[in-house]
Amino acid sequence: MKLKHILTTKQFLEKKLLNEIFNIADNFEKTEKKNKTPKILKDKILSCLFYEPSTRTRFSFESAMLKLGGQVISTENAAHFSSAAKGETLEDSIRVVSFYCDVIVLRHPEIGAAKRAAKVSLVPIINAGDGSGEHPTQALLDLYTIKKEIGRTSDLKIGMVGDLLYGRTIHSLIYLLSLYQNIEIFLVSPKKLKLPEKYKLFLKKHKIKFSESDNFESIISKVDVLYITRIQKERFQSLKAYKKVKNSFILSKTLLNKANKKTIIMHPLPRVNEISQEIDPDNRAAYFRQAQNGLYIRMALLRLLFEKNKIFSHNN
Amino acid sequence: MKLKHILTTKQFLEKKLLNEIFNIADNFEKTEKKNKTPKILKDKILSCLFYEPSTRTRFSFESAMLKLGGQVISTENAAHFSSAAKGETLEDSIRVVSFYCDVIVLRHPEIGAAKRAAKVSLVPIINAGDGSGEHPTQALLDLYTIKKEIGRTSDLKIGMVGDLLYGRTIHSLIYLLSLYQNIEIFLVSPKKLKLPEKYKLFLKKHKIKFSESDNFESIISKVDVLYITRIQKERFQSLKAYKKVKNSFILSKTLLNKANKKTIIMHPLPRVNEISQEIDPDNRAAYFRQAQNGLYIRMALLRLLFEKNKIFSHNN
Amino acid sequence: MKLKHILTTKQFLEKKLLNEIFNIADNFEKTEKKNKTPKILKDKILSCLFYEPSTRTRFSFESAMLKLGGQVISTENAAHFSSAAKGETLEDSIRVVSFYCDVIVLRHPEIGAAKRAAKVSLVPIINAGDGSGEHPTQALLDLYTIKKEIGRTSDLKIGMVGDLLYGRTIHSLIYLLSLYQNIEIFLVSPKKLKLPEKYKLFLKKHKIKFSESDNFESIISKVDVLYITRIQKERFQSLKAYKKVKNSFILSKTLLNKANKKTIIMHPLPRVNEISQEIDPDNRAAYFRQAQNGLYIRMALLRLLFEKNKIFSHNN
Repeated sequence: MKLKHILTTKQFLEKKLLNEIFNIADNFEKTEKKNKTPKILKDKILSCLFYEPSTRTRFSFESAMLKLGGQVISTENAAHFSSAAKGETLEDSIRVVSFYCDVIVLRHPEIGAAKRAAKVSLVPIINAGDGSGEHPTQALLDLYTIKKEIGRTSDLKIGMVGDLLYGRTIHSLIYLLSLYQNIEIFLVSPKKLKLPEKYKLFLKKHKIKFSESDNFESIISKVDVLYITRIQKERFQSLKAYKKVKNSFILSKTLLNKANKKTIIMHPLPRVNEISQEIDPDNRAAYFRQAQNGLYIRMALLRLLFEKNKIFSHNN
Repeated sequence: MKLKHILTTKQFLEKKLLNEIFNIADNFEKTEKKNKTPKILKDKILSCLFYEPSTRTRFSFESAMLKLGGQVISTENAAHFSSAAKGETLEDSIRVVSFYCDVIVLRHPEIGAAKRAAKVSLVPIINAGDGSGEHPTQALLDLYTIKKEIGRTSDLKIGMVGDLLYGRTIHSLIYLLSLYQNIEIFLVSPKKLKLPEKYKLFLKKHKIKFSESDNFESIISKVDVLYITRIQKERFQSLKAYKKVKNSFILSKTLLNKANKKTIIMHPLPRVNEISQEIDPDNRAAYFRQAQNGLYIRMALLRLLFEKNKIFSHNN
Repeated sequence: MKLKHILTTKQFLEKKLLNEIFNIADNFEKTEKKNKTPKILKDKILSCLFYEPSTRTRFSFESAMLKLGGQVISTENAAHFSSAAKGETLEDSIRVVSFYCDVIVLRHPEIGAAKRAAKVSLVPIINAGDGSGEHPTQALLDLYTIKKEIGRTSDLKIGMVGDLLYGRTIHSLIYLLSLYQNIEIFLVSPKKLKLPEKYKLFLKKHKIKFSESDNFESIISKVDVLYITRIQKERFQSLKAYKKVKNSFILSKTLLNKANKKTIIMHPLPRVNEISQEIDPDNRAAYFRQAQNGLYIRMALLRLLFEKNKIFSHNN
């Protein structure tokens, strides 16, 4: 089970690996609560190379590294790198930065950037989002949240709501769910933002039952998990069209009343207003716990990267 | 004596608490000189969330945290947070960031931001400036500087010079001085930048003697402390009006000659030219020592926050 | 041998000092490979004060400090410092920042900035580039690379190619090479970008043989070291003139075939296309190793600064 870089969710389509990651994450949650996390990454340096800012994601990686005893060097401004501005390739930047650290967390606006970086890097690359491509650590923390909250990853009814066309986290979650038995998915989106054909074919191929609609209310009472995503104004031609659609996909307190007592609400955040703030105190609102799980998942991934990469360090 | 968050100078209107802070700060100055500061915040993470840059303030908090053995995650660019730009509320950002750290230092352009943050944060919030609102750690280091330089906080004649209308540090200092006996204040400002009525009523209520004028020279020889603030060009309608006024509130070497040998000169910095650089070598120039005191005060506050917040950590 | 600040290459015109630095750098490379670098800068804080971004240089200093056990506070955005924007002098900023750290790495767009900073700082200043002025740590790592790659610093034929007029690293290297015997330099540049007269006089004074031409091909087979620099578009009046010139100074694989088997290719990076990427796998391509050497040189310089500055710390 080789884990040299973390580039795509497809590297994680193995139940055994997922269980290993989730067990390590569980364990780190416990050690954190007792202030007893072992400092296993002492003398290791993580570099955050963010070509677009994402303070939330950057902080969760940096915090994970520090809690494991490591250190961090960081830029949230790599696009204004004098060198990138001067025309340096991503590959040259990565080659140089990989001399100065033991692992690179890369956020880049172009699809495939992380893969290109991995080809030349001397140290592991973690893809923290490459444009509309992948964001594999988010997919892992999403599945981990379902497991923690519901207690299982099979026999689940999951509502996926909002922008299913561009919603990167939805796509990745669909890949991961294909590993498990008896999953049923309720796709709910505006007509213009339906799940791409590619993913529907994938669902069919893996015999995952699914339905499509644009009626949010109709699925509320049927699901164990409600995964809600933000609908971006930019996807619509007129503000009027946007506003009309947007309001049909807002989870209000009234709507939530129709849901099961054990249904959990997830959201990759940031949220704008697709989930009413009134819902925050409801125990079914799992989205902030979901963000917290990101910390433990990233700690687990860092540990695995270094364990599985002993041959991969500067030291030989 | 609860110190859950540090939001406003009004939390510190207690002589006993101030003395405790100042004693701890004194002690940290000593341990720093001997390289013997105890690493009491090991495994704690401070997050600097600055929605507007302030390298000076940020560095002093980060340095304080590192000297106590803690670690730091930091953004000076939180306003360009993809999430803030996408319309996320401050509250949501704080909720998430508070999973990744043990204390948040917040700088934000809006009055009341720190208070809003404190309502939802899982960890202590330190207000490092909320617009024209408060900057309580500055007020504490100002009073601490007076105590260290003069040897007392009562029986003092204090000149406050410059922009008394918008000068946030002046207003906070007035609150703190109300705790002490026999204070006399000489307010000196351009007519357009006089101390707001609210603070004059406060002075009267606390029976603090004060006078107002626009004649800098006339008070120089009368005071123990000269607290000078910057007059901002933006406050004036014409450049001519600004220049005329500005020059009447510059502390030159000639003017300083009229001051007492023990008078100290304070300034919250940055200074532009309201204090002549010729004065820097004069031992009465206390403004750089004042900036240094900020380090010890912030170390003391961090220690107190963690001591008094045992029930407040992630660990239960 | 006093090393209070690192401001200019001219401080290093001493063979003994250079050898000391290079030996320490060699040693750090070894300890790094074994994960045994002694944490000699524990409890020390390095501050990166970058008035223009340079992630590469910043990361190499930060990594060097962390590997020596120290800590880092950092801004890549010092120009937007509220205080600099408000009109604060560099001197005031340095005075304050020097309270919060033990060494300052300064990058600034103005010539002489580092020298001005050194005059008022309480802690050592390291010049990490002051406009078109100096960048002494780059010069040291360049010479160190020659020594490591070729095995000697005398009896060398060196080609310097590209922008010799503005190329700051070329100028600094010329100063350092003057210490050594039997150096011959082949200057190759567009006519408009020839080495300034000042440096040619220096070469003559030190009896270093040199020739000038604009024919890259003609020198390839003659040199031990090819030091190539980027030609900037901005130096030319028309894009056409630039393109014509640029193409004559590109090191292609075909051109490299004419070089000696032991010739090394150096470049201060970032590279745009003056060295073809095809060459990267060739063992003669030393430019990435050169960047890596920057880490060890900076570790060595940090060690020397603290060793030689015992009298210079906050502790007395």
